[in-house]
Amino acid sequence: MRRIGALIFPGFELLDVFGPLEMFGLLDDAYSLTLVAETAGPVRSGQGPSACADATIGDGPAYDILFVPGGAGTRREVGNTRLLDWIAGASECSEFCLSVCTGSALLAKAGVLDGRRATTNKMAFAWVADQGPKVHWVRQARWVEDGKFITSSGVSAGMDMALGAIAVMHGPETAEKVAGWAEYSWQKDRDLDSFAKMHGLA
Amino acid sequence: MRRIGALIFPGFELLDVFGPLEMFGLLDDAYSLTLVAETAGPVRSGQGPSACADATIGDGPAYDILFVPGGAGTRREVGNTRLLDWIAGASECSEFCLSVCTGSALLAKAGVLDGRRATTNKMAFAWVADQGPKVHWVRQARWVEDGKFITSSGVSAGMDMALGAIAVMHGPETAEKVAGWAEYSWQKDRDLDSFAKMHGLA
Repeated sequence: MRRIGALIFPGFELLDVFGPLEMFGLLDDAYSLTLVAETAGPVRSGQGPSACADATIGDGPAYDILFVPGGAGTRREVGNTRLLDWIAGASECSEFCLSVCTGSALLAKAGVLDGRRATTNKMAFAWVADQGPKVHWVRQARWVEDGKFITSSGVSAGMDMALGAIAVMHGPETAEKVAGWAEYSWQKDRDLDSFAKMHGLA
Repeated sequence: MRRIGALIFPGFELLDVFGPLEMFGLLDDAYSLTLVAETAGPVRSGQGPSACADATIGDGPAYDILFVPGGAGTRREVGNTRLLDWIAGASECSEFCLSVCTGSALLAKAGVLDGRRATTNKMAFAWVADQGPKVHWVRQARWVEDGKFITSSGVSAGMDMALGAIAVMHGPETAEKVAGWAEYSWQKDRDLDSFAKMHGLA
């Protein structure tokens, strides 16, 4: 059983968080899910609805998998030293470190992606790349795997990435099974990214 | 601006709710999103994380769009008369009434789908159909539109349905634009449903 700590902050993007957590949650014998924030309780998403954090960053890093979503709130959180310090520590202690969309800006700003290959949302690419000049940013990829770091493109790419991460941990057959339960057409080729072209990056 | 009231209950399915709400939320000039529950505050999903209801069913139905997700909790809620009465009233007052996955079991049990065509999760089909013997259940469809009622197949089908609903309200170009923002490959043919066969319904 791997414990997933999913960071949320004001202005997180709903699907960045709950698309991947759905996929992991369907394997409830393999993963437990905890929403983590600076303070426990309601945290409002960029779309309006709030999620409730059950743990805080003050509880210390104790997750096998650190999961960092994106959203408009990342523009503020890249300046939040306390949060970035927690991300750096939680990433260090993790077996896997995942991000969706502009969540990779937070990983980059925390310094944990230096020298690594990573990707991000294709509409916010230039801003994210500025947060981590020592990161090898990949302009065209649905998601990128580099060691324990698995970073995805924007919003719905997180679901394909989560299934890719499940394939790494449990094999592709398990990932296919989860996709079937969710009635989800998994795009399993991580290099296939039609949105890079749509948004002017390829 | 249309107000969406998204019902949540203990054991709701994460992606059933937040996949569609992401799509509507990206059009923040067109839709406002409110999570509604029997009591305000945290409501735990079937996968573990909680969302916070900002409104209760006691506040009365005041939504242009009623949105009902599925999840394991529907097995209990089909016996919840107070909730079903609210669904019937909120559906009556709505311009559109949407469901994802086993959410259509709640609509059926509330009586609002009688004589209508509707669909649901392909793994729970027989149980859902039993909740509404007067409903014309469609075994193979990504989603079904019948008047103001738009019901989708399981979990991730909700995102395709939401984009279909946006196409009905704002035109297909707007739906395509939203899908592009979310880096989502919209499956826009509502009759194309490979999961019906996978789960033995076709």
